[in-house]
Amino acid sequence: MTQRNATPGNLEIARDAVLKPIEDVAAGMGVGPHLLEHYGRGVAKIDLAAIDELSSRPAAKYVVVSAITPTPLGEGKTTTTVGLGQGLTRIGRPATISVRQASMGPTLGIKGGAAGGGYSQVVPMERLNVHLTGDLHAVTAAHNQLAAMIDNELFRGNSLGIDPDAVTWRRVVDINDRALRDIVTGLGPRTNGPPRQTGFDITAASELMATLAMATSLRDLRERLGRIVIGYTRGSGEPVTAEQVRAAGAATVLLREALKPNLLQTIENTPALVHTGPFGNIATGNSSVVADLIGIRSGDYLVTEAGFGADMGAERFFNIKCRVSGLVPDVAVVVATVRALKLHSGRHTVVAGRPLPLEMLAENPDDVLAGADNLRKQISNIRRHGVTPVVAINAFGGDYPSEHEAIKQVAAEAGVRCAVSTHFFNGGAGAVELAEAVAEAAEEPSEFRHLYPVDAGLREKIETIATQIYGADGVEYTPTASRSLDQYERNGWGDLPICMAKTHLSLSADPTLRGAPSGWTLPVREVRASVGAGFIYPICGQMQTMPGLGSDPAATHIDINDDGETIGLF
Amino acid sequence: MTQRNATPGNLEIARDAVLKPIEDVAAGMGVGPHLLEHYGRGVAKIDLAAIDELSSRPAAKYVVVSAITPTPLGEGKTTTTVGLGQGLTRIGRPATISVRQASMGPTLGIKGGAAGGGYSQVVPMERLNVHLTGDLHAVTAAHNQLAAMIDNELFRGNSLGIDPDAVTWRRVVDINDRALRDIVTGLGPRTNGPPRQTGFDITAASELMATLAMATSLRDLRERLGRIVIGYTRGSGEPVTAEQVRAAGAATVLLREALKPNLLQTIENTPALVHTGPFGNIATGNSSVVADLIGIRSGDYLVTEAGFGADMGAERFFNIKCRVSGLVPDVAVVVATVRALKLHSGRHTVVAGRPLPLEMLAENPDDVLAGADNLRKQISNIRRHGVTPVVAINAFGGDYPSEHEAIKQVAAEAGVRCAVSTHFFNGGAGAVELAEAVAEAAEEPSEFRHLYPVDAGLREKIETIATQIYGADGVEYTPTASRSLDQYERNGWGDLPICMAKTHLSLSADPTLRGAPSGWTLPVREVRASVGAGFIYPICGQMQTMPGLGSDPAATHIDINDDGETIGLF
Repeated sequence: MTQRNATPGNLEIARDAVLKPIEDVAAGMGVGPHLLEHYGRGVAKIDLAAIDELSSRPAAKYVVVSAITPTPLGEGKTTTTVGLGQGLTRIGRPATISVRQASMGPTLGIKGGAAGGGYSQVVPMERLNVHLTGDLHAVTAAHNQLAAMIDNELFRGNSLGIDPDAVTWRRVVDINDRALRDIVTGLGPRTNGPPRQTGFDITAASELMATLAMATSLRDLRERLGRIVIGYTRGSGEPVTAEQVRAAGAATVLLREALKPNLLQTIENTPALVHTGPFGNIATGNSSVVADLIGIRSGDYLVTEAGFGADMGAERFFNIKCRVSGLVPDVAVVVATVRALKLHSGRHTVVAGRPLPLEMLAENPDDVLAGADNLRKQISNIRRHGVTPVVAINAFGGDYPSEHEAIKQVAAEAGVRCAVSTHFFNGGAGAVELAEAVAEAAEEPSEFRHLYPVDAGLREKIETIATQIYGADGVEYTPTASRSLDQYERNGWGDLPICMAKTHLSLSADPTLRGAPSGWTLPVREVRASVGAGFIYPICGQMQTMPGLGSDPAATHIDINDDGETIGLF
Repeated sequence: MTQRNATPGNLEIARDAVLKPIEDVAAGMGVGPHLLEHYGRGVAKIDLAAIDELSSRPAAKYVVVSAITPTPLGEGKTTTTVGLGQGLTRIGRPATISVRQASMGPTLGIKGGAAGGGYSQVVPMERLNVHLTGDLHAVTAAHNQLAAMIDNELFRGNSLGIDPDAVTWRRVVDINDRALRDIVTGLGPRTNGPPRQTGFDITAASELMATLAMATSLRDLRERLGRIVIGYTRGSGEPVTAEQVRAAGAATVLLREALKPNLLQTIENTPALVHTGPFGNIATGNSSVVADLIGIRSGDYLVTEAGFGADMGAERFFNIKCRVSGLVPDVAVVVATVRALKLHSGRHTVVAGRPLPLEMLAENPDDVLAGADNLRKQISNIRRHGVTPVVAINAFGGDYPSEHEAIKQVAAEAGVRCAVSTHFFNGGAGAVELAEAVAEAAEEPSEFRHLYPVDAGLREKIETIATQIYGADGVEYTPTASRSLDQYERNGWGDLPICMAKTHLSLSADPTLRGAPSGWTLPVREVRASVGAGFIYPICGQMQTMPGLGSDPAATHIDINDDGETIGLF
C-alpha cells in the first residue's frame, strides 16, 4: 500500500552499494591505519587510543536523533540518522554517524534489522545484523561466565554468605527465547549445584552491555565491572559485587575487544560507528560513549541516535550518557511521521507485526493535527535541556502533502525548524533539506543543561523526570520500591542518575494512552540498580527483558540461495 | 619440580614472539590476499574458494599427531603438533599445522588453553583463547536459535507432533556451568511456553560444531544442517529434523563465516590453521575437513592433530574425517611421555589439577617399560590403518635419559622410528630429530585403509572397533542401546560411521585400567545419532558434556594490569 513496498528490498540495495575500503573511510575521519583492526571486509575496530590522538582536532557539532512517541512499528530514527549523516555530507558538512549495534534476537525474530533501511542503510548489512565483530557474543560470554562463578560460589560453600534467593544476576542469550524467561537450574545430582529459580534475558538487557556503553576507557570498564552488584547477602542484605566473586577481571578480558567501536559506512560511504546496544526497555538505549568520543573529532558533524521517543532515549542521553562523556549536544532532531501523529489522535489502533489499518492510509491532516500534542510535548522536552530541536518529517510513500503541511504548521507554531526527509527513497539527496535545517540550528549556541543535579535524592530525580518530562502529576511508589530506594541511598548509590523503565509507546506509563496525557500518576512498581553501568532504574509497569518468537519467525525465511548468497535478511 | 616451571610463562613467550604480517604467512601457503579476511591483528579467515584455487598445487605429505593413552594432564599433542610443524620447516620442509579451536570453558575453568605451550605455541594466543573470530559464539547462537524454534513449535500448537519428552536438542554455552546441566524451562505464565526438562551442554559438544568440522562446502553444510535430528514424534517416534522446524537455513547463515578456517601462525611463523573444536568426549575431536583441504595444498607437509589417544582421535580421524575429506594420511605420530608410560605400569595414580606424585619423578626406566604395552597397542592401532607410525617422546624437564632410552627400546623392538623432542623448551630446533624421522617415514608409501566398510551393520562396525582397536573381547548392549541401533537402521542411518564415546583415559571403557587391558567387554549403555555431522555415537560409560568450575577457576586469576595488558591467561 505504501511505496516502501515498491522499492527494492533492503538486502538488494545494501548489496548494490559500492563500499569504500574501510581504511579510506577511517582516513577521512582522521583515524590512521595504526588505529584500525580489520574484522572481515568492510568492518574494522578502532583502537581507543584514537580518543587521545584526535583530541587536537576541532570538535564536531553534536546532533542527537530522537523522535515523538512512536507507534509499535517504529518511526525510522535509524534511517533518519543515516539519511541525515548522508545529507550533511552532501551539503559539504562531512558527518559521522553513531548508532547502536543490532541484537540478533529481533533480526531472527520479527523484522527488525538495525541497519536502517532503503537508501539510508549501514553496510555491510549482513555483517551488521549477524554477529558483526562478536561484541554481543562477548557480552553473552562474560555475563554467563559471571553467572557460573556465582553458582559455583553457592556450590562451594558460599563463603560470601550470598542469599540464593537474592541473586539478581540472571543469564543471557542473544535469541528471542520465551522458554528461558523463568527456569530452575541445578537439578539432578548434588554435583550439579543447588536448585535455584532464575532465568535468561536477551543479551541487550545485560548490565554488561549497559556498562560497555558507558565506559570511557579499559580501566574505567574494569572498575565499573567490579562494582556490578550480583545479589545480596543472607540476613543483613548487603550487596555482593562481581569483584567479590572474583569475576570482574576475566569479564574485562572477555570484553576488551568489544570495548573498541566498530567502523562501517553508509551506502553513501559516510563513516558509521556501530557500537553497543543497551536495551531501551531497562537501560539507556544509547550507543557507546567511546564511539561518540571518537566521532566528535572525526568531522564537522556527529549524528548519534537515542532509542525510543524524546521522553525516553533523549532524556537518558542528556542526563546519563552526556554526563559521562562530557559532550555537549547542539541539536536534537525529533523524528515525526504522519502515521504516528494520526495514532496520537486517539482515533486509531496499530498493532506490531500487522499492517496499518486502511483508514489510517486515507488523506487526513485533521487526524495529524489532533495528535500534535505529543510532538509539542517532545519538542518542549528537548528545549528543557537547552538544546535546539529540529523536526524531521520522515516521509512514507502513502503520505499526502497536506499531512506534511499539518506537521510543518505545528512546528512553525512552536518556533522550530522543520523539514520533510525522503532519505528512505532517495538517500542523502532526500535529506538535504533536513541537513540544512540542522546545520542552521547548530549555529545557535547550545545552552545544554542537565534536567536534575545528580546529587539530588533518588525520589527527587524520579519525580523531576515524571512531572517535567512525562507530564505526570506525581509518582506513586509501591512499598517494595520505597524500601529499595531507601536501601540504595544507604548503600551509597543515591548519587547515580535515573534510567526510567517505562513504556516507550506513551508519554505516560500506560501504553494505550496517546498524545500528551495529563492527570495521571507514575506508578513505580520496583526499583533496580545497575551500579556498574551507573544508574538506578525504576520499573514503571511490566518490562519484558526476554522477547519471544512469533508464529512465523524471521529465521524461517533466512537461508542461502543456489549461489550461496544470504537471502531473507531484512 | 619439572623444568617447565622454570621457563617463562606461555603468555610472556607468546607476547615476545615476532609475528609476520598474516598476509605474508598466507602468501607462503599460496593463499593470495583476495582469499583473506582479516579479523584483528595476526588473524585472518580464508575463503573456501582457496580449496579450488590451490587444487593444481602438489599435495603435501599428511601427518596426523596422535598419542598413547594420556594421563588426565594430557601429554602435549598440541605442543608436539606445533613443534613438529616448526621443526619440519627448519629442515627445509615448509609445513602447515592444523589444530582445533579453543573452547573458552576450559580456558576460564581449569588451565587448558589450546594454543600449545612454551616455545611451541600458536599466536596471538590471547586471541586464540578468547573469542578468536567468534566461531564458537556463532555455533552457540545457531544452536540456541534452533532450540528456541523447537520450543516455539511446541508453544504454537506443535503441528509436527513432536513428543516434548523426546526432544534431544538441548542448548549450549561456551562456559563451564554445572548449574545448567539439568534444568526445567518454560516456568511462569502460559506465555512462557510449556514446562520441559532439558539442559545445556558446552558449545564444543554441539552437533553444529561437529557438523561444521565435517562440512566440505557451504552447500554441504546447508544439507547437513537440514538433516540434523532434534527429536522424535509422539506415538510413532519418527525423527524430526532441523529442516522440518524451518531452522536450517538461518543456522547456515549464522555459521557461514564460521565455516571459513582461521589462519594464525606459530611463534616461528609456521602457518597455523585453527578451525572448529568438536568435543572429543562425544564427537570426532578433530579439526575441520575444510582446513585440511586447504592445508594439504599449502606446503610440503600438513601436520594435523587428532584428540586423545590413537584408539580415539586417530581412529575417528582415519574412519570418519578422512572418509569425508578423501585425504590419505602418510604418517601418524604417536606422542609418548615418560609420565604416561609410568602411569600405565599401574603403579601410580595421577589426578587432574594436582601435581604428579613425587615417586613418579624419580628415575625409573623399569616403570616406563612396565607401561609399554599401551604404546605397543597404539602403534599397532596405527598400523592397522596402513599408516606409518613414528613415536615422539615429548620431553619434560624431569625426565631421565635412561627413561627416554626405555621408550626408544620399545619403539625399536616394534620396528618404529622414534625421536626425543624438546620443542617445549627449544621450539622447532628441539623438534629437528622428530621432523627428520617423520620426513623419512613419509617417504614410505601409504597403504592407508579404513578399519571397516561403512556399509557394514552398525553392530559390526562397533564390534570391529571394540575388538581390533580397544582389545575388548566383545560388546555388550543394554536393551535401550539395542533398540536404538535397530531403530537407527530402520531410519536409514545404518551407513553412518561410528564415533565411539568412550573414556580417553584407558584403552578400555574403565578409566582406571592402565596399559593394554584384556579380558573385558565393552558396555554400550545407549546410542545416539549425529545425523547432520554424519555419525552414530555409542555411549560407553558416563560422558560429561558440561564441565563444572573447580574451587579456584582460572577466571579468578585473569585480569588486566596497570598497562591494560591481559594477565593470568595460560
